[in-house]
Amino acid sequence: MAKRKTLEDVFVHLLSDIYSAEKQLTRALPKLARASTSPELEQAFTTHLEETQGQIERIDQVVEATGLRLKRMKCAAMEGLIEEGQEVIDEIDKGPVLDVALIAAAQKVEHYEIASYGTLIAVGKQLGFKLPALQPLLDTFEEEKRTDEKLSALAKADVNPTAAAG
Amino acid sequence: MAKRKTLEDVFVHLLSDIYSAEKQLTRALPKLARASTSPELEQAFTTHLEETQGQIERIDQVVEATGLRLKRMKCAAMEGLIEEGQEVIDEIDKGPVLDVALIAAAQKVEHYEIASYGTLIAVGKQLGFKLPALQPLLDTFEEEKRTDEKLSALAKADVNPTAAAG
Repeated sequence: MAKRKTLEDVFVHLLSDIYSAEKQLTRALPKLARASTSPELEQAFTTHLEETQGQIERIDQVVEATGLRLKRMKCAAMEGLIEEGQEVIDEIDKGPVLDVALIAAAQKVEHYEIASYGTLIAVGKQLGFKLPALQPLLDTFEEEKRTDEKLSALAKADVNPTAAAG
Repeated sequence: MAKRKTLEDVFVHLLSDIYSAEKQLTRALPKLARASTSPELEQAFTTHLEETQGQIERIDQVVEATGLRLKRMKCAAMEGLIEEGQEVIDEIDKGPVLDVALIAAAQKVEHYEIASYGTLIAVGKQLGFKLPALQPLLDTFEEEKRTDEKLSALAKADVNPTAAAG
Protein backbone atom coordinates (compact mmCIF):
# COMPACT_ATOMS: atom_id res chain seq x y z
CA MET A 1 0.00 0.00 0.00
CA ALA A 2 1.32 3.48 -0.87
CA LYS A 3 2.44 5.55 2.10
CA ARG A 4 0.20 8.39 3.12
CA LYS A 5 2.37 11.47 3.41
CA THR A 6 0.29 14.58 3.10
CA LEU A 7 -2.89 15.88 4.66
CA GLU A 8 -4.52 15.34 1.27
CA ASP A 9 -3.56 11.65 1.43
CA VAL A 10 -5.24 11.44 4.84
CA PHE A 11 -8.37 13.10 3.42
CA VAL A 12 -8.44 10.64 0.51
CA HIS A 13 -7.96 7.71 2.87
CA LEU A 14 -10.78 8.85 5.18
CA LEU A 15 -13.07 9.49 2.23
CA SER A 16 -12.28 6.07 0.71
CA ASP A 17 -12.87 4.45 4.10
CA ILE A 18 -16.31 6.01 4.57
CA TYR A 19 -17.17 5.20 0.95
CA SER A 20 -16.49 1.53 1.71
CA ALA A 21 -18.39 1.83 5.01
CA GLU A 22 -21.49 3.28 3.30
CA LYS A 23 -21.37 0.61 0.59
CA GLN A 24 -21.20 -2.15 3.22
CA LEU A 25 -24.07 -0.49 5.04
CA THR A 26 -26.36 -0.56 1.98
CA ARG A 27 -26.05 -4.35 2.08
CA ALA A 28 -26.67 -4.57 5.84
CA LEU A 29 -29.64 -2.21 6.20
CA PRO A 30 -32.20 -4.42 4.40
CA LYS A 31 -31.33 -7.21 6.87
CA LEU A 32 -31.85 -4.87 9.81
CA ALA A 33 -35.20 -3.76 8.34
CA ARG A 34 -36.36 -7.36 7.88
CA ALA A 35 -35.33 -8.26 11.44
CA SER A 36 -37.33 -5.36 12.96
CA THR A 37 -40.65 -5.92 14.70
CA SER A 38 -41.70 -2.31 15.23
CA PRO A 39 -43.01 -0.89 11.94
CA GLU A 40 -41.46 2.48 12.86
CA LEU A 41 -38.03 0.86 13.22
CA GLU A 42 -38.39 -1.05 9.97
CA GLN A 43 -39.33 2.22 8.27
CA ALA A 44 -36.36 4.00 9.86
CA PHE A 45 -33.97 1.41 8.40
CA THR A 46 -35.64 1.56 4.99
CA THR A 47 -35.47 5.36 4.98
CA HIS A 48 -31.85 5.22 6.06
CA LEU A 49 -31.05 2.87 3.18
CA GLU A 50 -32.32 5.51 0.75
CA GLU A 51 -30.35 8.18 2.62
CA THR A 52 -27.21 6.02 2.53
CA GLN A 53 -27.52 5.65 -1.24
CA GLY A 54 -27.77 9.45 -1.43
CA GLN A 55 -24.71 9.75 0.82
CA ILE A 56 -22.69 7.57 -1.55
CA GLU A 57 -23.70 9.90 -4.39
CA ARG A 58 -22.59 12.86 -2.27
CA ILE A 59 -19.14 11.27 -1.88
CA ASP A 60 -19.01 10.99 -5.68
CA GLN A 61 -19.85 14.70 -5.86
CA VAL A 62 -16.97 15.53 -3.49
CA VAL A 63 -14.59 13.42 -5.58
CA GLU A 64 -15.69 15.29 -8.68
CA ALA A 65 -15.49 18.75 -7.06
CA THR A 66 -12.03 18.17 -5.57
CA GLY A 67 -10.55 16.17 -8.43
CA LEU A 68 -9.31 13.54 -5.96
CA ARG A 69 -9.23 9.82 -6.65
CA LEU A 70 -10.60 7.33 -4.14
CA LYS A 71 -8.61 4.26 -3.13
CA ARG A 72 -10.04 0.76 -3.24
CA MET A 73 -10.20 -0.39 0.37
CA LYS A 74 -12.45 -2.14 2.86
CA CYS A 75 -13.39 -0.34 6.05
CA ALA A 76 -12.43 -2.82 8.80
CA ALA A 77 -14.32 -0.95 11.51
CA MET A 78 -17.63 -1.04 9.60
CA GLU A 79 -17.00 -4.73 8.97
CA GLY A 80 -16.83 -5.24 12.75
CA LEU A 81 -19.89 -3.07 13.39
CA ILE A 82 -21.97 -5.00 10.85
CA GLU A 83 -20.71 -8.28 12.31
CA GLU A 84 -22.12 -7.12 15.67
CA GLY A 85 -25.47 -6.41 14.04
CA GLN A 86 -25.50 -9.84 12.42
CA GLU A 87 -24.70 -11.51 15.75
CA VAL A 88 -27.67 -9.74 17.29
CA ILE A 89 -29.98 -11.04 14.54
CA ASP A 90 -28.61 -14.57 14.91
CA GLU A 91 -28.87 -14.67 18.68
CA ILE A 92 -32.15 -12.97 19.53
CA ASP A 93 -35.63 -14.04 18.49
CA LYS A 94 -37.62 -11.45 16.57
CA GLY A 95 -39.47 -9.15 18.96
CA PRO A 96 -39.12 -6.00 21.08
CA VAL A 97 -35.85 -7.16 22.69
CA LEU A 98 -34.24 -7.69 19.29
CA ASP A 99 -35.47 -4.23 18.29
CA VAL A 100 -33.57 -2.68 21.20
CA ALA A 101 -30.40 -4.57 20.26
CA LEU A 102 -30.77 -3.55 16.59
CA ILE A 103 -31.11 0.09 17.59
CA ALA A 104 -27.98 -0.22 19.73
CA ALA A 105 -26.03 -1.70 16.81
CA ALA A 106 -27.34 0.95 14.42
CA GLN A 107 -26.42 3.82 16.75
CA LYS A 108 -22.83 2.58 16.88
CA VAL A 109 -22.83 2.67 13.07
CA GLU A 110 -24.24 6.22 13.07
CA HIS A 111 -21.58 7.38 15.51
CA TYR A 112 -18.85 5.87 13.35
CA GLU A 113 -20.18 7.92 10.48
CA ILE A 114 -20.62 11.09 12.55
CA ALA A 115 -16.97 10.86 13.64
CA SER A 116 -15.81 10.17 10.06
CA TYR A 117 -17.69 13.02 8.42
CA GLY A 118 -16.77 15.39 11.26
CA THR A 119 -13.07 14.71 10.66
CA LEU A 120 -13.44 14.88 6.88
CA ILE A 121 -15.02 18.33 7.13
CA ALA A 122 -12.29 19.58 9.49
CA VAL A 123 -9.45 18.21 7.33
CA GLY A 124 -11.16 19.38 4.13
CA LYS A 125 -11.37 22.95 5.47
CA GLN A 126 -7.69 22.87 6.41
CA LEU A 127 -6.86 21.70 2.90
CA GLY A 128 -8.57 24.86 1.66
CA PHE A 129 -11.46 23.13 -0.11
CA LYS A 130 -14.24 25.64 -0.55
CA LEU A 131 -17.73 25.21 0.83
CA PRO A 132 -19.41 24.03 -2.41
CA ALA A 133 -16.95 21.13 -2.54
CA LEU A 134 -17.52 20.24 1.12
CA GLN A 135 -21.27 20.94 1.28
CA PRO A 136 -22.22 17.31 0.48
CA LEU A 137 -20.19 16.17 3.51
CA LEU A 138 -21.88 18.76 5.74
CA ASP A 139 -25.30 17.62 4.50
CA THR A 140 -24.49 14.00 5.29
CA PHE A 141 -23.03 14.90 8.69
CA GLU A 142 -26.32 16.58 9.65
CA GLU A 143 -28.35 13.70 8.20
CA GLU A 144 -26.41 11.12 10.26
CA LYS A 145 -26.99 13.13 13.43
CA ARG A 146 -30.72 13.27 12.71
CA THR A 147 -30.77 9.49 12.13
CA ASP A 148 -29.01 8.95 15.46
CA GLU A 149 -31.58 11.16 17.23
CA LYS A 150 -34.44 9.31 15.54
CA LEU A 151 -33.00 5.98 16.74
CA SER A 152 -32.67 7.35 20.29
CA ALA A 153 -36.36 8.34 20.22
CA LEU A 154 -37.34 4.90 18.89
CA ALA A 155 -35.28 3.21 21.61
CA LYS A 156 -37.26 5.06 24.26
CA ALA A 157 -40.59 4.17 22.63
CA ASP A 158 -39.55 0.61 21.89
CA VAL A 159 -38.30 -0.53 25.24
CA ASN A 160 -41.26 0.71 27.26
CA PRO A 161 -42.89 -2.08 29.27
CA THR A 162 -46.02 -2.11 27.10
CA ALA A 163 -44.01 -2.70 23.96
CA ALA A 164 -41.89 -5.34 25.66
CA ALA A 165 -45.03 -7.19 26.77
CA GLY A 166 -46.52 -7.02 23.26
CA MET B 1 -23.24 -19.00 22.41
CA ALA B 2 -26.29 -18.74 24.69
CA LYS B 3 -29.25 -16.98 23.12
CA ARG B 4 -30.02 -13.50 24.37
CA LYS B 5 -33.71 -13.39 25.20
CA THR B 6 -34.41 -10.59 27.62
CA LEU B 7 -33.61 -6.92 27.83
CA GLU B 8 -31.30 -7.81 30.71
CA ASP B 9 -29.38 -10.18 28.41
CA VAL B 10 -28.98 -7.32 25.94
CA PHE B 11 -27.69 -5.06 28.75
CA VAL B 12 -25.19 -7.73 29.85
CA HIS B 13 -24.05 -8.22 26.26
CA LEU B 14 -23.55 -4.49 25.69
CA LEU B 15 -21.71 -4.13 29.00
CA SER B 16 -19.47 -7.13 28.23
CA ASP B 17 -18.79 -5.70 24.77
CA ILE B 18 -17.70 -2.28 26.06
CA TYR B 19 -15.64 -3.97 28.79
CA SER B 20 -13.71 -5.82 26.07
CA ALA B 21 -13.49 -2.60 24.03
CA GLU B 22 -12.01 -0.62 26.95
CA LYS B 23 -9.53 -3.42 27.71
CA GLN B 24 -8.37 -3.47 24.08
CA LEU B 25 -8.06 0.31 24.19
CA THR B 26 -5.73 0.27 27.21
CA ARG B 27 -3.29 -1.73 25.05
CA ALA B 28 -3.66 0.58 22.04
CA LEU B 29 -3.43 3.99 23.72
CA PRO B 30 0.27 3.78 24.67
CA LYS B 31 1.04 3.12 20.97
CA LEU B 32 -1.00 6.16 19.94
CA ALA B 33 0.82 8.28 22.55
CA ARG B 34 4.24 7.12 21.32
CA ALA B 35 3.30 7.84 17.71
CA SER B 36 2.23 11.42 18.49
CA THR B 37 4.39 14.39 17.61
CA SER B 38 2.42 17.15 19.33
CA PRO B 39 3.13 17.03 23.09
CA GLU B 40 -0.50 18.02 23.73
CA LEU B 41 -1.75 15.05 21.72
CA GLU B 42 0.66 12.67 23.45
CA GLN B 43 -0.58 14.01 26.78
CA ALA B 44 -4.22 13.61 25.70
CA PHE B 45 -3.65 9.92 24.91
CA THR B 46 -1.77 9.37 28.18
CA THR B 47 -4.55 11.07 30.15
CA HIS B 48 -7.13 9.02 28.32
CA LEU B 49 -5.28 5.83 29.21
CA GLU B 50 -5.69 6.71 32.89
CA GLU B 51 -9.35 7.58 32.29
CA THR B 52 -9.91 4.30 30.45
CA GLN B 53 -8.51 2.36 33.38
CA GLY B 54 -10.96 4.25 35.61
CA GLN B 55 -13.78 3.44 33.17
CA ILE B 56 -13.00 -0.28 33.46
CA GLU B 57 -13.25 0.06 37.25
CA ARG B 58 -16.61 1.82 36.80
CA ILE B 59 -17.90 -1.16 34.78
CA ASP B 60 -16.83 -3.38 37.68
CA GLN B 61 -18.85 -1.11 40.00
CA VAL B 62 -21.94 -1.49 37.80
CA VAL B 63 -21.52 -5.27 37.79
CA GLU B 64 -21.32 -5.22 41.57
CA ALA B 65 -24.31 -2.87 42.03
CA THR B 66 -26.58 -4.79 39.63
CA GLY B 67 -25.44 -8.30 40.54
CA LEU B 68 -25.04 -9.13 36.85
CA ARG B 69 -22.30 -11.33 35.44
CA LEU B 70 -20.25 -10.25 32.43
CA LYS B 71 -19.69 -12.61 29.50
CA ARG B 72 -16.25 -13.34 28.10
CA MET B 73 -16.24 -11.88 24.60
CA LYS B 74 -14.14 -9.83 22.21
CA CYS B 75 -15.56 -6.60 20.80
CA ALA B 76 -15.14 -7.01 17.02
CA ALA B 77 -15.87 -3.36 16.27
CA MET B 78 -13.12 -2.10 18.59
CA GLU B 79 -10.79 -4.64 17.00
CA GLY B 80 -11.50 -3.01 13.62
CA LEU B 81 -11.14 0.51 15.01
CA ILE B 82 -7.77 -0.30 16.58
CA GLU B 83 -6.67 -1.97 13.34
CA GLU B 84 -7.38 1.32 11.57
CA GLY B 85 -5.23 3.16 14.13
CA GLN B 86 -2.39 0.69 13.65
CA GLU B 87 -2.59 1.07 9.84
CA VAL B 88 -2.24 4.81 10.25
CA ILE B 89 0.89 4.36 12.38
CA ASP B 90 2.36 1.89 9.88
CA GLU B 91 1.66 4.02 6.83
CA ILE B 92 2.45 7.58 7.85
CA ASP B 93 5.79 8.97 9.00
CA LYS B 94 5.78 10.61 12.41
CA GLY B 95 4.80 14.26 12.15
CA PRO B 96 1.83 16.63 11.99
CA VAL B 97 0.06 14.64 9.26
CA LEU B 98 0.22 11.46 11.35
CA ASP B 99 -1.14 13.46 14.29
CA VAL B 100 -4.23 14.40 12.26
CA ALA B 101 -4.80 10.78 11.25
CA LEU B 102 -4.32 9.61 14.85
CA ILE B 103 -6.90 12.12 16.04
CA ALA B 104 -9.33 10.89 13.37
CA ALA B 105 -8.85 7.28 14.49
CA ALA B 106 -9.23 8.21 18.15
CA GLN B 107 -12.44 10.17 17.53
CA LYS B 108 -14.00 7.11 15.88
CA VAL B 109 -13.12 5.16 19.02
CA GLU B 110 -14.66 7.85 21.24
CA HIS B 111 -17.86 7.84 19.20
CA TYR B 112 -18.10 4.05 19.48
CA GLU B 113 -17.92 4.45 23.23
CA ILE B 114 -20.37 7.38 23.32
CA ALA B 115 -22.94 5.29 21.42
CA SER B 116 -22.32 2.25 23.66
CA TYR B 117 -22.64 4.09 26.96
CA GLY B 118 -25.66 6.05 25.67
CA THR B 119 -27.49 2.83 24.88
CA LEU B 120 -26.42 1.18 28.13
CA ILE B 121 -27.84 4.09 30.14
CA ALA B 122 -31.15 3.99 28.19
CA VAL B 123 -31.54 0.22 28.53
CA GLY B 124 -30.43 0.28 32.17
CA LYS B 125 -33.12 2.85 33.00
CA GLN B 126 -35.76 0.73 31.26
CA LEU B 127 -34.61 -2.25 33.31
CA GLY B 128 -35.38 -0.20 36.41
CA PHE B 129 -31.79 0.08 37.64
CA LYS B 130 -31.58 3.01 40.01
CA LEU B 131 -29.29 5.98 39.55
CA PRO B 132 -26.55 4.87 41.99
CA ALA B 133 -26.13 1.67 39.95
CA LEU B 134 -26.03 3.59 36.65
CA GLN B 135 -24.06 6.64 37.83
CA PRO B 136 -20.67 5.15 36.82
CA LEU B 137 -21.97 4.78 33.24
CA LEU B 138 -23.22 8.37 33.22
CA ASP B 139 -19.83 9.58 34.48
CA THR B 140 -18.02 7.68 31.72
CA PHE B 141 -20.49 8.89 29.07
CA GLU B 142 -19.70 12.52 30.00
CA GLU B 143 -15.97 11.78 30.16
CA GLU B 144 -15.96 10.26 26.65
CA LYS B 145 -17.78 13.31 25.27
CA ARG B 146 -15.20 15.62 26.87
CA THR B 147 -12.37 13.54 25.35
CA ASP B 148 -14.00 13.79 21.92
CA GLU B 149 -14.27 17.59 22.28
CA LYS B 150 -10.64 17.81 23.40
CA LEU B 151 -9.57 15.84 20.31
CA SER B 152 -11.65 18.12 18.06
CA ALA B 153 -9.88 21.15 19.54
CA LEU B 154 -6.47 19.49 19.06
CA ALA B 155 -7.34 18.66 15.45
CA LYS B 156 -7.98 22.33 14.75
CA ALA B 157 -4.73 23.38 16.43
CA ASP B 158 -2.74 20.53 14.91
CA VAL B 159 -3.62 20.84 11.28
CA ASN B 160 -2.99 24.55 11.01
CA PRO B 161 -0.50 25.38 8.24
CA THR B 162 2.19 26.44 10.71
CA ALA B 163 2.06 23.09 12.48
CA ALA B 164 2.04 21.23 9.16
CA ALA B 165 5.15 23.10 8.06
CA GLY B 166 7.00 22.28 11.31
